[in-house]
Amino acid sequence: MTLLERHDTNAVAHLTLNAPEKLNALSDGMLAALQEQFDTLQGDATTRAVVIKGAGKAFCAGHDLKEMTAGRQAEDGERAYFKDLFDRCATMMTSIRALPQPVIAQVHGIATAAGCQLVASCDMAVAAQGTKFGVNGVNIGLFCSTPMVALTRNIPRKHAFEMLTTGQFIPAERAEALGLVNRVVAPDQLDEAAQDLAETVAAKLGAAVRIGKEAFYTQVEMTLDDAYDYTGDVMVQNMLYRDTVEGIAAFLEKRPPIWPQ
Amino acid sequence: MTLLERHDTNAVAHLTLNAPEKLNALSDGMLAALQEQFDTLQGDATTRAVVIKGAGKAFCAGHDLKEMTAGRQAEDGERAYFKDLFDRCATMMTSIRALPQPVIAQVHGIATAAGCQLVASCDMAVAAQGTKFGVNGVNIGLFCSTPMVALTRNIPRKHAFEMLTTGQFIPAERAEALGLVNRVVAPDQLDEAAQDLAETVAAKLGAAVRIGKEAFYTQVEMTLDDAYDYTGDVMVQNMLYRDTVEGIAAFLEKRPPIWPQ
Amino acid sequence: MTLLERHDTNAVAHLTLNAPEKLNALSDGMLAALQEQFDTLQGDATTRAVVIKGAGKAFCAGHDLKEMTAGRQAEDGERAYFKDLFDRCATMMTSIRALPQPVIAQVHGIATAAGCQLVASCDMAVAAQGTKFGVNGVNIGLFCSTPMVALTRNIPRKHAFEMLTTGQFIPAERAEALGLVNRVVAPDQLDEAAQDLAETVAAKLGAAVRIGKEAFYTQVEMTLDDAYDYTGDVMVQNMLYRDTVEGIAAFLEKRPPIWPQ
Repeated sequence: MTLLERHDTNAVAHLTLNAPEKLNALSDGMLAALQEQFDTLQGDATTRAVVIKGAGKAFCAGHDLKEMTAGRQAEDGERAYFKDLFDRCATMMTSIRALPQPVIAQVHGIATAAGCQLVASCDMAVAAQGTKFGVNGVNIGLFCSTPMVALTRNIPRKHAFEMLTTGQFIPAERAEALGLVNRVVAPDQLDEAAQDLAETVAAKLGAAVRIGKEAFYTQVEMTLDDAYDYTGDVMVQNMLYRDTVEGIAAFLEKRPPIWPQ
Repeated sequence: MTLLERHDTNAVAHLTLNAPEKLNALSDGMLAALQEQFDTLQGDATTRAVVIKGAGKAFCAGHDLKEMTAGRQAEDGERAYFKDLFDRCATMMTSIRALPQPVIAQVHGIATAAGCQLVASCDMAVAAQGTKFGVNGVNIGLFCSTPMVALTRNIPRKHAFEMLTTGQFIPAERAEALGLVNRVVAPDQLDEAAQDLAETVAAKLGAAVRIGKEAFYTQVEMTLDDAYDYTGDVMVQNMLYRDTVEGIAAFLEKRPPIWPQ
Repeated sequence: MTLLERHDTNAVAHLTLNAPEKLNALSDGMLAALQEQFDTLQGDATTRAVVIKGAGKAFCAGHDLKEMTAGRQAEDGERAYFKDLFDRCATMMTSIRALPQPVIAQVHGIATAAGCQLVASCDMAVAAQGTKFGVNGVNIGLFCSTPMVALTRNIPRKHAFEMLTTGQFIPAERAEALGLVNRVVAPDQLDEAAQDLAETVAAKLGAAVRIGKEAFYTQVEMTLDDAYDYTGDVMVQNMLYRDTVEGIAAFLEKRPPIWPQ
């Protein structure tokens, strides 16, 4: 048994956080395993979408507090240990944005603190009815400042502030209404819903999805004028892809495109 | 018959995309016609609001793919042609933001790709029940990177990502809930709903709407502190307008203001 | 009777705008009284949350138009008077963000123009059913340019534009759906709802809430990478608090934390 299992179906990589006895906490080992997979996927042209889910009762309960407490005894001091830990965690989270494949969080049970951050950091999210989302570090005196970075880029400001300072959980339906997840389905349809979404995206032209995903996160931090300058060039580049020439020709000829699989 | 028809009622300019056989595609001609109208409206103090709609079955289906395909044979090369095309398109879209008048998209049928971008680029939008919105370029291998610029400034991030990578359409009610349109009405009430909204805005003091609209898009890209520095000056300037002196006096005296029409 | 009343219960400071005959207008006196309270609260470690509400029929109807009109006769000229007024108002509004305590708007009746800005400037807001929100300065020829700064950082762009250019009011339920308020309750439950929310937040570790609130507004204006660099350091600092060590230990030992009150 490994901390992070992977199995692939139809060009979709499924990563399963597999430490159910720890509610899939983002321990040093789990962070390293996720980073390793993301580094591999970065150069993997045959995988077209990624699904992240959790084994057992919960998606992910955030950092591993026991391990963090032990880390206070680190040789080079607790400050250095924590700095390194949060750096590794942020690198893992932002690696999702940098992947060429769309990444979907498949969420059930609970997603708390850095677990909620993981959902917010994915490109899309599907949740089972009954799932609860929270950034509840404040309850133990540790404000969820890094999860907040991802959360506030997903949901409106006042609702994010409430979650962060009350530590209260919101149900899946609320998370959908606020923008944290794309859709909510019955628990027994969760696997299928995530797979359907992943396969829908995986069936598109990979090069177009790749250039588009990169542009998505780049332009969103620009002014409107800069964003148009930049994405105009992206469109030109995309128009010159041989497979895009074929895609447009196929559309005009009312036939399916002939694309490499 | 012209590509873009204009008729004016009660200080409201109605621009109708009029290439129904092409689903009002944003061809070179249509882009030029829109730009020409916007350039004219820029200096037109008697027009107080603008409504953009489409003739026939659809609002607008985006770029003209046949014309774009022909453009691959351009004398100075396809790269130069596409660069110029997307520049002209972005200039047209951002001209809407720069107009002194509020601009309302009146949407029915479908609004796809750059057609959906046109809706997102307008200041407000009214849609008929049954309208479908999509940024579906990914389906033909051309990611909607420029439409994305406008879309991600209207709706939450995960929902925008889903539309862009799945190419799926959303109904008008969903577009309203996400922030892409302001309201949804029955098809037979669409004209009236757009006209009502336009006349409501047109009845305000033009100088106040003009300075406010400019400030709207300028401040939204600033930090909070810079935004207050800037808008504080805008408020001072607005307070010194003779018609604003009258507007405030009229309010305090519980009578309608006497403003130039 | 003072312009701004304060009474404290259970570490929560209640500030009541108390000029009901003026619908609690933000007069020079009211702005000064709010600023004085915020300056005091800035260094007040025993107060853990702040509630702002209005006496009488309304929460707040914005600037004091009579006083502003009189200000046109100011010795150093109306321009200087207005510049100073909007500077003082922006300083008051942004002082809320700078307070170490979460600040909750408890809203009833109407919140208009700078009164709506006050709601948007608070960290959270609770509203009574029947409350109406508007930025209606455009109706008297004075576009709500400074209220817009706060409003556009709370609700989607097209809906903000509509409120600003139509001057129309939205009901509390709509304000909640758009993100301007956190929750809507029956009028006779408003006091309790605001107090409950305030006490929930007040019961958290003050140092964690303080560092988290500051980080909230700082990181939201950064790029994603900068935001992670910054909040990583905030997390390290938070982890080193003695009370956070205790909070985590208590959690792992399944007991309540022993924190100073």
